[in-house]
Amino acid sequence: MDVLTVLNLGEFAHVFSKMGMFPVFDLAYYIVSILYLKYEPGSVEVSRRSPVASWLCAMLYCFGSYILADIMLGSSPIDYFQHNSHILLASAVWYLIFYCPLNLFYKCVAFLPVKLVLVALKEVVRTRKISAGVHHAHHAYHHGFFIMVIVGYVKGSGVALMSNFEQLLRGVWRPETNEILSMSFPTKASLYGAILFTMQEAHWLPVSKSILILAFTLFMATSKVVMTARHSHGSPFTLIESWVCHLLFGSPLGDSEEDHHHPPAATPPTSPLKTKEELSEGARKRKVKKAE
Amino acid sequence: MDVLTVLNLGEFAHVFSKMGMFPVFDLAYYIVSILYLKYEPGSVEVSRRSPVASWLCAMLYCFGSYILADIMLGSSPIDYFQHNSHILLASAVWYLIFYCPLNLFYKCVAFLPVKLVLVALKEVVRTRKISAGVHHAHHAYHHGFFIMVIVGYVKGSGVALMSNFEQLLRGVWRPETNEILSMSFPTKASLYGAILFTMQEAHWLPVSKSILILAFTLFMATSKVVMTARHSHGSPFTLIESWVCHLLFGSPLGDSEEDHHHPPAATPPTSPLKTKEELSEGARKRKVKKAE
Amino acid sequence: MDVLTVLNLGEFAHVFSKMGMFPVFDLAYYIVSILYLKYEPGSVEVSRRSPVASWLCAMLYCFGSYILADIMLGSSPIDYFQHNSHILLASAVWYLIFYCPLNLFYKCVAFLPVKLVLVALKEVVRTRKISAGVHHAHHAYHHGFFIMVIVGYVKGSGVALMSNFEQLLRGVWRPETNEILSMSFPTKASLYGAILFTMQEAHWLPVSKSILILAFTLFMATSKVVMTARHSHGSPFTLIESWVCHLLFGSPLGDSEEDHHHPPAATPPTSPLKTKEELSEGARKRKVKKAE
Repeated sequence: MDVLTVLNLGEFAHVFSKMGMFPVFDLAYYIVSILYLKYEPGSVEVSRRSPVASWLCAMLYCFGSYILADIMLGSSPIDYFQHNSHILLASAVWYLIFYCPLNLFYKCVAFLPVKLVLVALKEVVRTRKISAGVHHAHHAYHHGFFIMVIVGYVKGSGVALMSNFEQLLRGVWRPETNEILSMSFPTKASLYGAILFTMQEAHWLPVSKSILILAFTLFMATSKVVMTARHSHGSPFTLIESWVCHLLFGSPLGDSEEDHHHPPAATPPTSPLKTKEELSEGARKRKVKKAE
Repeated sequence: MDVLTVLNLGEFAHVFSKMGMFPVFDLAYYIVSILYLKYEPGSVEVSRRSPVASWLCAMLYCFGSYILADIMLGSSPIDYFQHNSHILLASAVWYLIFYCPLNLFYKCVAFLPVKLVLVALKEVVRTRKISAGVHHAHHAYHHGFFIMVIVGYVKGSGVALMSNFEQLLRGVWRPETNEILSMSFPTKASLYGAILFTMQEAHWLPVSKSILILAFTLFMATSKVVMTARHSHGSPFTLIESWVCHLLFGSPLGDSEEDHHHPPAATPPTSPLKTKEELSEGARKRKVKKAE
Repeated sequence: MDVLTVLNLGEFAHVFSKMGMFPVFDLAYYIVSILYLKYEPGSVEVSRRSPVASWLCAMLYCFGSYILADIMLGSSPIDYFQHNSHILLASAVWYLIFYCPLNLFYKCVAFLPVKLVLVALKEVVRTRKISAGVHHAHHAYHHGFFIMVIVGYVKGSGVALMSNFEQLLRGVWRPETNEILSMSFPTKASLYGAILFTMQEAHWLPVSKSILILAFTLFMATSKVVMTARHSHGSPFTLIESWVCHLLFGSPLGDSEEDHHHPPAATPPTSPLKTKEELSEGARKRKVKKAE
């Protein structure tokens, strides 16, 4: 009976890992991504003043991972824009989220239960992107393990890694911080995922790729759904990370969590910003509402 | 007789669309572009302090459209620099405009009647670039309509789209605005032109490419000459744009024009800058003169 | 006897120009580069807060020249990361310099006699990179002399040319200056070297490439060793440059040297920065020591 379970699980994982992403999962990805764009302070004003800039930002949010991966592998950064149906679908989502009368579409998709489902679907796409990115890099550089990790990482993180330049497009410039200096949970998870998938591709992990995709998807979807439901920004890696960083890099223990509560005097240039960001986090939703 | 007129027009358009751009038209393009660089506040100081930075900026002004298009299509960004004669010609123009004794060359080409002719010739080159960019992208991505529009757009707009980074090279950083957030007339016209040429390439427009090139060139040259003669920054698209944006994107009516006269309270972060820019527009010529 | 000397010199130059750089010379390159990264104000804090950002900066310092040259020639910017052993060696150096217990490794390599040897070895690598860059560009663009100079230049200068963006990764943004606006000695020498190697490749210089490599290496190593030993930032080109710039570009005479002593009123935006930088130069070592 045990063998059967394994067989079924393996088969399920195989089917899951071959499932097409377009249009349902991609649609969820676009909706959640552009929702986050609308949460950004000032993005609604930009959408009124310059629809072209707003559309470009939305495209970066939806296709940033493809753009970055294409840059990393030396292809045309707008290579993915040849898929007209994907671009049109994302553009329609952008239009509905920003300009729908009565803000109806936004209210529907930002409704928590709906949003939780969309967030879970988005993580399915993210995992598949990481896996595809690592595989693509493996194809181009057979033993380029660093390249495989980097490409998988940018495929998973997407626009976050170029947030400074995406903000610049909207006239905002915050050089004091960036996604690498203070990684958010999805960026960190993408990095770890890219390392795992690279190890799998190099046959250093004794699991099949489809099982890894299934497991990583479950982990990501669960984490993000719980975090979204609890409006939390903590990460499940905090404890283990702080110990590893303490041992390897001499970072002070419990740093990432406590930082927010008692910012140490040692990092004056970034702490005021953090506070401002946290404030704006709170002010964000009000602004979005007010702007409509 | 009507048929004959059409035949002649078609033939004229065909000959016009095959006419070589080098060296006369390209020379006009380089002169006007580097003239605009010299108008930029601080550029004369940079030319004294660091000729290399000044030369690089001049090259970006002259060949920015090729650089951006090559980046977009994944080729070497300095691919165009293999045309030594073009680079040498542009470098000679840069040297004459910035370092000519008694500022003689600058005074000649900035003399309004001469400048108007050069501006008209420059628009001939711009239209050809848009058309070539769309055609090139069509060749690489047969159904990539978005790619065709993007490549045509960057070919037409050139350095304007990377003005933030061109300024950075001269030690100036103005993150509050960029060419996408507040498009100037040539950038907007390039976008519309790229859309038209893409539609022509996709056979959605019932005109031949040479006729379209002729018509668009005439429109651009006339508009720019009139605007240059009247020192105006308005655009012929304002009225239709404000209505379309009002209907499609809920932008307030008459926004782009009135903005300059009574800046609304809703956009405080950009309006002080605008004012500063307008001031510096006035102060520009004096500065350029003083610096020599 | 004279002929014999020439023969021997030619043979020695030939052997020298074919000598493998990995691992000894490359190791010296990595050590000196990451040493300079540690000198940068704030970099030790970054290494504690975000090891990933610190590692990325270290990689830019070590492989920035390959990244830039690959971008310039339209290849994958991370193409060089396929050489796992080079990346691992550089990573080990980074780890030892930033996290070695008691800061032992840093103290060893920053010890002046050791550092002088390493600096000399680094210049051997730099010259070889310029020569290889020019040769590579020559292979791709047979008559693209400008491209050859540009690629040789970025191969020699490396991270310096993208210092603004490397700093941004560490949360520092200094738009008022960049390496092109105020070139340091190695950047300038790389430019002149790239021009020389391009002239050699185009057969405009009556010397063999190996002789040129030997001569340029000797010049660079001597200059850098002397400058490092005397903690000087002056350059041997100052006198001739100020005369050439005066004649060609109308720059005020003796500008680059005197600038530092009596900053003229004409360039207010940059002079306060310079002063700040000079101050921080002094404060640097103390900071590095304090942070450990």
